Amino acid sequence: MLGKPRRLALLAEGSFVRLDAKTAIGVLRYRPQEVAAVIDSTRAGRTAETCVGVGGRIPVVASLDEAAARGADSLLIGIAPQGGGLPDAWRSVVRDALLRGWDVISGLHVFFGDDPEFRAAAERSGAVIHDLRRPPAERVVAAGRAGSVDALVVTTVGTDCNVGKMTTSLELVKALAEQGLKAAFVATGQTGIALADEGIAVDAVPADFVAGAVERLVVRAARGADVVVVEGQGGIHHPGYSGLTLSLMHGAMGEAMVLCHEAGRDSIRHSASRHEDVPIASLDRVCDDYERAASWRRDAPVVAVSLNTSGIDEGAARRACEEAARVTRRPATDPVRFGCGPIADVVRSMAARRARATSA
Amino acid sequence: MLGKPRRLALLAEGSFVRLDAKTAIGVLRYRPQEVAAVIDSTRAGRTAETCVGVGGRIPVVASLDEAAARGADSLLIGIAPQGGGLPDAWRSVVRDALLRGWDVISGLHVFFGDDPEFRAAAERSGAVIHDLRRPPAERVVAAGRAGSVDALVVTTVGTDCNVGKMTTSLELVKALAEQGLKAAFVATGQTGIALADEGIAVDAVPADFVAGAVERLVVRAARGADVVVVEGQGGIHHPGYSGLTLSLMHGAMGEAMVLCHEAGRDSIRHSASRHEDVPIASLDRVCDDYERAASWRRDAPVVAVSLNTSGIDEGAARRACEEAARVTRRPATDPVRFGCGPIADVVRSMAARRARATSA
Repeated sequence: MLGKPRRLALLAEGSFVRLDAKTAIGVLRYRPQEVAAVIDSTRAGRTAETCVGVGGRIPVVASLDEAAARGADSLLIGIAPQGGGLPDAWRSVVRDALLRGWDVISGLHVFFGDDPEFRAAAERSGAVIHDLRRPPAERVVAAGRAGSVDALVVTTVGTDCNVGKMTTSLELVKALAEQGLKAAFVATGQTGIALADEGIAVDAVPADFVAGAVERLVVRAARGADVVVVEGQGGIHHPGYSGLTLSLMHGAMGEAMVLCHEAGRDSIRHSASRHEDVPIASLDRVCDDYERAASWRRDAPVVAVSLNTSGIDEGAARRACEEAARVTRRPATDPVRFGCGPIADVVRSMAARRARATSA
Repeated sequence: MLGKPRRLALLAEGSFVRLDAKTAIGVLRYRPQEVAAVIDSTRAGRTAETCVGVGGRIPVVASLDEAAARGADSLLIGIAPQGGGLPDAWRSVVRDALLRGWDVISGLHVFFGDDPEFRAAAERSGAVIHDLRRPPAERVVAAGRAGSVDALVVTTVGTDCNVGKMTTSLELVKALAEQGLKAAFVATGQTGIALADEGIAVDAVPADFVAGAVERLVVRAARGADVVVVEGQGGIHHPGYSGLTLSLMHGAMGEAMVLCHEAGRDSIRHSASRHEDVPIASLDRVCDDYERAASWRRDAPVVAVSLNTSGIDEGAARRACEEAARVTRRPATDPVRFGCGPIADVVRSMAARRARATSA
């Protein structure tokens, strides 16, 4: 990961549960062979699988020492708290890791590389700090360049944060590749970047340049690709992040969208400073809203629905997919639980139609 | 301005024309008594009025020396180029101003205070650098707090950048105040901040925190106010800035919008890197789109249209207002040319209805 083979300790102290440890879970799902241990002293002694449903027998331990005993040589911050700050209790863990010479990989909005204490510790030991969210120096205003790439661009969008946009994107890329297409993943968030070893955390980019950053990523990813799948962010109905979502959609200039939703979630999952209840509209209404928002730059249908059913049992999950398909009149699946076939099929047909139209 | 009385030199070298010198024009219109001269060597010898239609007999001069002879003691960067960079030719002017001990006020995305050469010059002379676009240290994710203030919140929105959102906001605040209401202006861009002596340049805030920054400004401005008018940014149809606009709208949680448009502009005015033509839809369609986007958080009608007719003659301007009113079925005026009455009237009635409903 990030330039060299690693044995990661994933820091998720007090938060190694399904909805909070988003980054840790992404790494456990897609790069488990690089994880030595998860640190959460409140769950030490358990396995990753029993805590969050992925990661098999990877152990949960209480401290850096115990992670070191399991062979860890790098520390990855495994949570992505709203607001992106560093919980106070973690400061000493990060400093200690750096003093041991462990590289530290962080996706927080607070940049560890700008922290005098962390920087001093890293300089002393030779450790490297990777701030995944640091925006690129180059600042570009979007100008529709992604609208003329040869590849089909598909954007994942969602009813809320943390519903499965990154996972859906990765599963779709995998499924398309299995069907013989050249499919590229565009990482736009800290977890996606850790998994893809490249990308831009667009939520940390100054607002004027978000669409431009996405445009640049899409143009680059499209070279030689049949399909580009862009990891979405936030949601256009989200109190804090709606604009980020629209910037991403309009920068990507996608021709199709996949709507992601967590089965059973009926209101937006706010921060602790929750001020009001923000209900999630019916999925067909959400599809309409997304299509309207896309159309301000380029028409793009929502072609499928991706349901995250990790919180419910299999029977309920099947019923939720059927219900989503009925309500939205679009294919619906949980790509992790039931496979990404229905989504990949519709995207592949679109790509084929598009290729025929282009060559005609 | 910004903490002390000043005699400003407005730097607009080679760009002191109507659509390029946005910041200079704002200052000339609203704080002319603080302007000593405009610097543009290509137009030296003329007056501000003959170049941009405002500023009366304020002279255009060729150099800092000539501005100093007119009594200037501070330099304000008078353009807001897309992308926000510093034109190379201006570097020596800024450095020389700082070395003279002039405070320098800049709204560019590039922060002068982070430039080693500028910082050294300022330290030597005791000059102060004001980077109007520097985002606040505090980072807040919006959570709907602006939705429960006592004041009526009105947001200006637009068909494009640089069509008159700030000017409309300021004219509306002035007109409401003349009618006896307590009206507050929320500055969200560099020019607005220079004029209001406070505010946040939201386009430079990391995307996750734009709506939160606006929310905070609105909550603060609403204290003791009957009406809060929020300066809009960008436009939801703009290739680069659409997300910024949506963040601002959803952070402000306005209950009404005023649509701003430049009469005769039929496509979005892009950067030099223009890649495609982006036509502006009919104004009634633009109103519909804005109302749809607002409704994702809170229903808000577009209550009036503000036309910038500075590029056309008076007869054409009157016809343009009539046509805009007919097409949108809303009051339409150019607040600078014909007064803000029709907009202020509809806002005042709304505020009165709202006050009655609240007290009932």
